[in-house]
Amino acid sequence: MSIKLKAITNPPTWEELSIRLKKVRTLMKEQDLDYYISFNPVNIYYLTNFAFYVHERPFILIIEKKGLPKMLIPRLEKGHFESRARCELEFVIYYEFPARSGENWYDHYQKQIRYDAKVGIESELPIGIVNKTPGEPIVSDIIDEIRIVKTDYEVGRIYHACRVVNKGHKVLLKKCRPRVLEFALYKEVTDAMTSKIVQDIPNANFRATETTGAVWPPSISHDPHLIPHIFTPMEEGGPHVSIVSAQVDGYGVEIERSFFLGYVPENAVKPFKIMLEARALAYNMLKPGALMSKVDKAVRAFITEKGYGDYIIHRTGHGLGITGHEAPFLAEGYDRPLEKNMVISVEPGIYIPGIGGFRHSDTVLITEEGYQKLTKAPETLEEVTIPI
Amino acid sequence: MSIKLKAITNPPTWEELSIRLKKVRTLMKEQDLDYYISFNPVNIYYLTNFAFYVHERPFILIIEKKGLPKMLIPRLEKGHFESRARCELEFVIYYEFPARSGENWYDHYQKQIRYDAKVGIESELPIGIVNKTPGEPIVSDIIDEIRIVKTDYEVGRIYHACRVVNKGHKVLLKKCRPRVLEFALYKEVTDAMTSKIVQDIPNANFRATETTGAVWPPSISHDPHLIPHIFTPMEEGGPHVSIVSAQVDGYGVEIERSFFLGYVPENAVKPFKIMLEARALAYNMLKPGALMSKVDKAVRAFITEKGYGDYIIHRTGHGLGITGHEAPFLAEGYDRPLEKNMVISVEPGIYIPGIGGFRHSDTVLITEEGYQKLTKAPETLEEVTIPI
Repeated sequence: MSIKLKAITNPPTWEELSIRLKKVRTLMKEQDLDYYISFNPVNIYYLTNFAFYVHERPFILIIEKKGLPKMLIPRLEKGHFESRARCELEFVIYYEFPARSGENWYDHYQKQIRYDAKVGIESELPIGIVNKTPGEPIVSDIIDEIRIVKTDYEVGRIYHACRVVNKGHKVLLKKCRPRVLEFALYKEVTDAMTSKIVQDIPNANFRATETTGAVWPPSISHDPHLIPHIFTPMEEGGPHVSIVSAQVDGYGVEIERSFFLGYVPENAVKPFKIMLEARALAYNMLKPGALMSKVDKAVRAFITEKGYGDYIIHRTGHGLGITGHEAPFLAEGYDRPLEKNMVISVEPGIYIPGIGGFRHSDTVLITEEGYQKLTKAPETLEEVTIPI
Repeated sequence: MSIKLKAITNPPTWEELSIRLKKVRTLMKEQDLDYYISFNPVNIYYLTNFAFYVHERPFILIIEKKGLPKMLIPRLEKGHFESRARCELEFVIYYEFPARSGENWYDHYQKQIRYDAKVGIESELPIGIVNKTPGEPIVSDIIDEIRIVKTDYEVGRIYHACRVVNKGHKVLLKKCRPRVLEFALYKEVTDAMTSKIVQDIPNANFRATETTGAVWPPSISHDPHLIPHIFTPMEEGGPHVSIVSAQVDGYGVEIERSFFLGYVPENAVKPFKIMLEARALAYNMLKPGALMSKVDKAVRAFITEKGYGDYIIHRTGHGLGITGHEAPFLAEGYDRPLEKNMVISVEPGIYIPGIGGFRHSDTVLITEEGYQKLTKAPETLEEVTIPI
């Protein structure tokens, strides 16, 4: 039973960001923290809507129990920050890195935090910043934790982002023919997605926007993290494996398919079928309350039972949200139940050197009743065998 | 007196990477460290030639006093790593993140390091990894330190990268006319640079390659870190400020210019002249032995004396190498002498709201005698006033 979703393209409202901040403070209270420090650009984006890349000039968000969050930034970024932020903040400005004695970022930073305080920090916080942080540092990934379950606004953004990759994948399958080069495919697919993004969101933030489209032809599709050479030609047969992913004005999603050009080699039929069955098995388990480790375990057991256990080289899925790769994980060792409004990839894979890679990936929403696929592309062997 | 440079486009040899590793071990010895741990992808690239982005599956380089460095990676990345690495390594492979109890990355990691050891770590190392590191952690940015002075091989790579941005900037100035949109310029400039890159380096690593070309038209050029909206039109007059930068198969460089379309507004003449003079002053100080803080101080003093002190919003320059933004810095607070084979930007800027931004930036090599500009574009007011 499918639920009706609405694609959202506007930036978060002040209310949306206030809800997120409130959640942070609820966890701060539960953990008896006086401050929470965020340095991870993804977490700062989540709370402020301001995107940046980390360089030598630090950007640090300082959240107290009450009052406006403080944002420590270099002077150079104030206008930029104000142009994108959708929440109220107090700025703490330092001039430059490095600066004259007494005027460095940490001189300003240290004035914001009491020395007797309990200070929550991200496990990603660099030791160089931990060492400059007053008070007692307590590692607790509060913002990462909150990001695991999406708000309805986020679901609407992700749903829109999925339409972008659906379009990209359609273009990819249309253009992918034997002898077409990786480079040409990349260009067609990313151009198509970028066009859609700027049409739908004219003010899209390109610091939080990125598109990728690539195909692993059969000679390398058994090695899914080997980046294909740009002059790699597509081949007859298969399995090819496509990856179309995008971060669309802040929301990251993906769609991937094993597919064939012209014909299906005989030795590819069985692993493709097992992959589809493993995938169906995973989907059947998706609903609030199901333990994520159990899904992965069941998928692995099934593939192993069918004789392909040696060809499993990754977990069944990962979360997506404001990045394309984050918690939660459909993985053994991740003993947490699925919840409504989690967004995950489902992508059990089988990788056989000499034959190729078998993996479909979709971006999937966990709903009250079970799940809903947000991405759409051909799935069955018949559908993914493209006439040439 | 200009020295003859040769553009290099081939990946580093085993010898080149051995020299870098040897420098790390020399500093380890001086600092009495038993191990050095690198997590920063830029530093790992510097020592191995393997580029990746940081996600939840950690990649950690473990260097002991002797023997092959060890590289902790997820199973999924082994083929990818081997396809790009240009040094000898011992792989320590973990299956996935997260994994079953006893099989996580840190279980493997902790077996590689003695508990009574002194372990050098980067100031960027996340606290979550510091807390899993056996032994006594000692923050010391050894690899960052070594990267500050380039090898001759690196100078050749950077020289080549500068030819790429020179080409991009030429295209930019040719295409930039009133009413042309940011988006169109970006596309022309990045396409031109990407074409040159793949012609010169067919096997370029696109995980370590990126091109950017943008113009801040006069209405926003006073705010140099405000990312222009993609539908921003160019205007008559100026100052416009261009940024053309690229990371070319691992080496990052930039060229930037203030320029005018059709005419120079009267109130822009003086600040442009002062910027050029400040720049000449900086160049005149560039030679091995000159204190970098003094260069910045002299530039600021000059601009302030001319009445524009309130409009300085950043330091005089930064280093470039395998990133486009790194140590060393032409900045007050950075009391270190210039050395032969440092590569820095020289870009004193004046930013006047209502008038615009005045900044030329070049990528500059420090030579035995002084300096050599590696990037090339028009400089004088006459040269940067483009007829329309």
